[in-house]
Amino acid sequence: MAILRPSITTGPDHNISDVPSVVIQRLPLYVRVLAYFEGNEYEMVSSEQLAGRLQMTPAQIRKDLSYFGKFGKQGRGYNVKRLAAELRRILGLDRSWNACLVGVGRLGRAIISYPGFQPEGFRVVAAFDADSALIGSEVGELKVDPLGDIPVKVRRLNIRIGIVAVPAQHAQGVIDRLVDAGIRAILNYAPIAAQVPPNVRVANIDPVLGLQSMTYYLKNARG
Amino acid sequence: MAILRPSITTGPDHNISDVPSVVIQRLPLYVRVLAYFEGNEYEMVSSEQLAGRLQMTPAQIRKDLSYFGKFGKQGRGYNVKRLAAELRRILGLDRSWNACLVGVGRLGRAIISYPGFQPEGFRVVAAFDADSALIGSEVGELKVDPLGDIPVKVRRLNIRIGIVAVPAQHAQGVIDRLVDAGIRAILNYAPIAAQVPPNVRVANIDPVLGLQSMTYYLKNARG
Repeated sequence: MAILRPSITTGPDHNISDVPSVVIQRLPLYVRVLAYFEGNEYEMVSSEQLAGRLQMTPAQIRKDLSYFGKFGKQGRGYNVKRLAAELRRILGLDRSWNACLVGVGRLGRAIISYPGFQPEGFRVVAAFDADSALIGSEVGELKVDPLGDIPVKVRRLNIRIGIVAVPAQHAQGVIDRLVDAGIRAILNYAPIAAQVPPNVRVANIDPVLGLQSMTYYLKNARG
Repeated sequence: MAILRPSITTGPDHNISDVPSVVIQRLPLYVRVLAYFEGNEYEMVSSEQLAGRLQMTPAQIRKDLSYFGKFGKQGRGYNVKRLAAELRRILGLDRSWNACLVGVGRLGRAIISYPGFQPEGFRVVAAFDADSALIGSEVGELKVDPLGDIPVKVRRLNIRIGIVAVPAQHAQGVIDRLVDAGIRAILNYAPIAAQVPPNVRVANIDPVLGLQSMTYYLKNARG
C-alpha cells in the first residue's frame, strides 16, 4: 500500500472546524488502508498495523483519530469495518457528489474517462469549454456547454465540485467563474497557484512536485 | 501561493540518507515559494514569511532546512536567490532528467503535451504502448515503441524516470518492467498501490484523494 498525499489548499486562515487540515487530508489514506485490511479479512487492526502501512507513527494515528471521538479499545485496536464506515461518514463519502469539468482538451477528455471517480461517488455531470468549435460536441456522455452556462448548470445539477483542466493562462479566470457560481471545492490540474476566497478549497494535481522530490533520491543514488 | 503536497512512496524501510522523506517532499514547495519571492523582488525572506505562504510554522521550516546545513543568518533571514539555488542543487534540479511514458491513450497524450515538465528540466524522450495498433504511430514528437523496447531505450537514452499512464490492471506489470530496466523513479497515474523494491520511489498522481478530503469541508459547510 502506497502512501498517497493529497494536496489541499484554501484561502488564508479559514477553519470551519478545530481539526487541522493536515489531519483531514490524511483521513482518505486511512480509508484506503482500512479497505486493504478489510480486503484481507482483518476484523481488527492496531494503530501499529495502520502506522506500518502509512509510514507514520502509531501515536500520530491515535491522535488524528482522537479528533473525531473514541474509536478503538485500549489493547484491542480498531474494528476495521466500523472505523472505515465512520471515517467515510466523517468525510462525506457515504453519498455521491456531482462535479463539472472545465476544459475538454486532451487532459479534460482523459479526466472524463478516468475510471477512478465513479466508484468513489464522484460523478462528472457537466463539461464546459471556451472554444466555440467544441461547444455542442459530445465528450463521453456529456455535451460540451459554453462557460456562460456554468452558473445555471451548477445550480440545476447540484454541482459542488469544479475540475479545472484548462491551460495555465486561463485557469484563474475559470476558477473565479466557478467560485462565482457557488463552487467551494476545486480540483485544479493547471500549473498555477490559484487564488480563492477563504471558504473555497483547491486540490492541486501537480506531477512536477512529485518528480522534483524523486530526483533527490536519483541524484544521491548514483552521485 | 498554494500548498502543494506531492505523494512519494517507496519500498519498505529504505533510507538513503538521514533526511526524513517528508522533508524531501517539502523542498520543492520551498523552491516554488522562493520563486514567488524572487519574482516579487525580495532579496531576503524570513522563516516567518516562508511559513505564512506554506501554512507551516517558522520552526518547522528552520528545522527542515537545518538538515542541509546553515542557510540563514540569525535575525536576517534567508537570501532568496542563494537558498533557491542551493535547494535546487540539493534536489538535483540544476540538471535535466529524461523520462519515458508508458501508455499513450488519452491520459498519456495529455501527459506528453503537458507544458509543465520541460521548463522544470523533465523531458519525455520515449513513449511505449502494448497496443500494436499504436506502435509506430507518432505522439507529439515521439514514435510509440513496444514495451519490449523499454530496456534498450532506457539504457540508450539515459532514461531515469518512468511515467505510467496505463489502465489500473496493467500498471503493476508495467512498473515491474520499468524497474527491471533500471528505472528507480516512477510517476504513477494509475489508481493502484504499486509494489516496488526498497530502492525505487513512486510518486502517485491520485485525483480522488484530493476530492475525498474536500468533501469533508463541503459536507460541513452546508450540513
